[in-house]
Amino acid sequence: MDHTIYLDNAATTRVDETVLAEMLPYLAQNYGNPSSSYSYGRVARIAVENARRSVAYQLGVKAANIFFTSGGTESNNTAIAAAVRDLGCTHIISSPIEHHAVLHSVEFYSQLHGVPYSMVAVSDAGIVDYDDLERQLKEQAAAGRKCLVSLMHANNETGSLLDVKRVGALCQEHGAIFHSDCVQTVGHYPLNLPEMGVHFISGSGHKFHGPKGTGILYIAPGLTVKPFIHGGGQERNMRAGTECVHGIVGFARALELAMEHYKTESEHIASLKAYMKKQLAANIPGVTFNGPEASLYTVLSVCFPKSEESDNLLLRLDMEGICVSGGSACSGPSGGSHVMRALGKNESCTTIRFSFSKYNTTTEIDHVTEVLKIALGLHTAEGKPATSAC
Amino acid sequence: MDHTIYLDNAATTRVDETVLAEMLPYLAQNYGNPSSSYSYGRVARIAVENARRSVAYQLGVKAANIFFTSGGTESNNTAIAAAVRDLGCTHIISSPIEHHAVLHSVEFYSQLHGVPYSMVAVSDAGIVDYDDLERQLKEQAAAGRKCLVSLMHANNETGSLLDVKRVGALCQEHGAIFHSDCVQTVGHYPLNLPEMGVHFISGSGHKFHGPKGTGILYIAPGLTVKPFIHGGGQERNMRAGTECVHGIVGFARALELAMEHYKTESEHIASLKAYMKKQLAANIPGVTFNGPEASLYTVLSVCFPKSEESDNLLLRLDMEGICVSGGSACSGPSGGSHVMRALGKNESCTTIRFSFSKYNTTTEIDHVTEVLKIALGLHTAEGKPATSAC
Ligand SMILES: Cc1ncc(COP(=O)(O)O)c(C=O)c1O
Ligand SMILES: Cc1ncc(COP(=O)(O)O)c(C=O)c1O
Repeated sequence: MDHTIYLDNAATTRVDETVLAEMLPYLAQNYGNPSSSYSYGRVARIAVENARRSVAYQLGVKAANIFFTSGGTESNNTAIAAAVRDLGCTHIISSPIEHHAVLHSVEFYSQLHGVPYSMVAVSDAGIVDYDDLERQLKEQAAAGRKCLVSLMHANNETGSLLDVKRVGALCQEHGAIFHSDCVQTVGHYPLNLPEMGVHFISGSGHKFHGPKGTGILYIAPGLTVKPFIHGGGQERNMRAGTECVHGIVGFARALELAMEHYKTESEHIASLKAYMKKQLAANIPGVTFNGPEASLYTVLSVCFPKSEESDNLLLRLDMEGICVSGGSACSGPSGGSHVMRALGKNESCTTIRFSFSKYNTTTEIDHVTEVLKIALGLHTAEGKPATSAC
Repeated sequence: MDHTIYLDNAATTRVDETVLAEMLPYLAQNYGNPSSSYSYGRVARIAVENARRSVAYQLGVKAANIFFTSGGTESNNTAIAAAVRDLGCTHIISSPIEHHAVLHSVEFYSQLHGVPYSMVAVSDAGIVDYDDLERQLKEQAAAGRKCLVSLMHANNETGSLLDVKRVGALCQEHGAIFHSDCVQTVGHYPLNLPEMGVHFISGSGHKFHGPKGTGILYIAPGLTVKPFIHGGGQERNMRAGTECVHGIVGFARALELAMEHYKTESEHIASLKAYMKKQLAANIPGVTFNGPEASLYTVLSVCFPKSEESDNLLLRLDMEGICVSGGSACSGPSGGSHVMRALGKNESCTTIRFSFSKYNTTTEIDHVTEVLKIALGLHTAEGKPATSAC
């Protein structure tokens, strides 16, 4: 798969070789169970606790507040279940553009515990209406209800960003618990969790060159919650199951690397996004961009005017070895995107999400632009405009 | 850690190099998201589905009934939650020697849904009292209650085995749902699930030279249950979250290998266990063995008569680079074992669990026996009996 151009880094990323090298010894050599008290166990335990300290340090919090999970989805489930079950939340406020890992958990726990939920309004660009949020928070507080607010830091489809500090302050003012799905921002921005005013955040390793199957949940100091997965006393009784040591080690190393190289890598990626935007605007008539101007630097969501050609775009790009996504990966190949539907984009657009990583280059983007022009009938393979006879 | 003798294979095992080699390409090369429709995604999807087919084949079931999870603990939680929430079970029958991943889930879901539970009687050797089970099943059925029976196939501390077929038949007769925690038997015995009469079983990769953080849940055909982790449509809507592709591939390869070499490896391991039993009986006065004569061939649970020396045995063995366990790893270094307590062994015994794998040798066992003799004051390091003056 050498000729592949991978522009779907919001779906998942390639594990960095440095991360892999760090993980390897914990598979066939230091394979002890961290719960075992002898040498092999201690080596594994130390690896897990060093990883926890490192992650905590990167996020500006104490190690005791970081819990390793099997991924962003489990972390989201854990936070939402805990807020409703253990923290007395009797109303949930979320948004229609959340990831299904939040939306479906909100629906499930709302029903299980008989706790209603409401959706905050979002603009066409996918920006949360903070006034609506404040109004809802006030209303619920006035009715004596404690709220869980679950709003994602960055949207995985449009790249729209939440003003987390603002939401954190609003939640604090109205006594609400604030969970933020930070799966698209952990490893992509330096985050200082105490400054963000969050009670829970979720992160996932495979979104920033770490391994699949490992995530984190941050639980703010002072919150006493039950585990989501019951069993052994791992993760200080918060998450049972033998720790996935190699995954945990990989998560921490990936986060360290990402933060160490944040400045250069984020500049590189942001410039790729800007370059692609410029190239598309210059070459594809009628193209527009979803999401607000200031958005997640890794994601460019493009609206191609609907046409017969644009309908086949994903397939054509795939045939050319170009990996991009029509929505998020999790919504699967069919069914369309609930996010684009919520933003009213499904009718007029063929939406394609291009998402970038440190491994991408402008040469790749030039190539993709050419392929797009051909696929949309704007250009023939031989370099002549498609309108000319050939 | 070259001089280490690892005899704690019931806690976790070394990843087989063949398994590791199979996993590696799915980290830094074929790193696609299985939910993505393009080339990279399809490669990952095919790997996951091939793994599923392979696991299903080994267990005598259809691929559609195998679900990948983050481990044995999550699988147990999923089954127990589903039986109570979705399958109308209004009473749970389990046993006091189950793993905490079952016991704590039973307690939690029992309380959450207001469904009572009872414990079946077990013999001193850890054998389930089948008459008591039948009596309880009859009683509950007569009262119009549908039961979930959750009984482990092999006990991780004593190695006692369940007559699964007998329990399966009893459950069928009385309309009960049968879940069996098979974490210690998947990969250690050829299992034919339809013959066992189970509705759910749990397995965990790291117990048979696969990676940590990957398990399976079998759900029998015809059962309609909700997911435990909510979100994307992965695992046919039964388990949300980006699939841990490398872990899934590793799980399947480890199971294939284990079954391919089952005859020679199980004979080797069984002979190691028999040899150690003989050596200990011959060399350590007063030693007895927990669990029944016919038990899991990988586990030898030894009762050393309580003494000052036996109290320090774990520590002494650790100092000599010998990894063994006082109970299960999950119960942690302190607190004692709930299983040994249930079997009335805590008072009179210092229990040590030796658990073997294909990598162990008789030479290792000879060495451990010598170390034990010295540690128990039966022999000096110089080879003279400890009772002689020196
Ligand atoms: C915003 C967001 N939340 C949650 C998830 C789920 O994370 P994971 O697949 O690690 O469970 C994803 C991606 O899959 C995501 O983009
Ligand atoms: C019998 C039994 N059940 C469940 C588990 C939990 O499995 P995992 O650690 O993979 O979650 C274990 C071991 O840890 C076990 O021995």
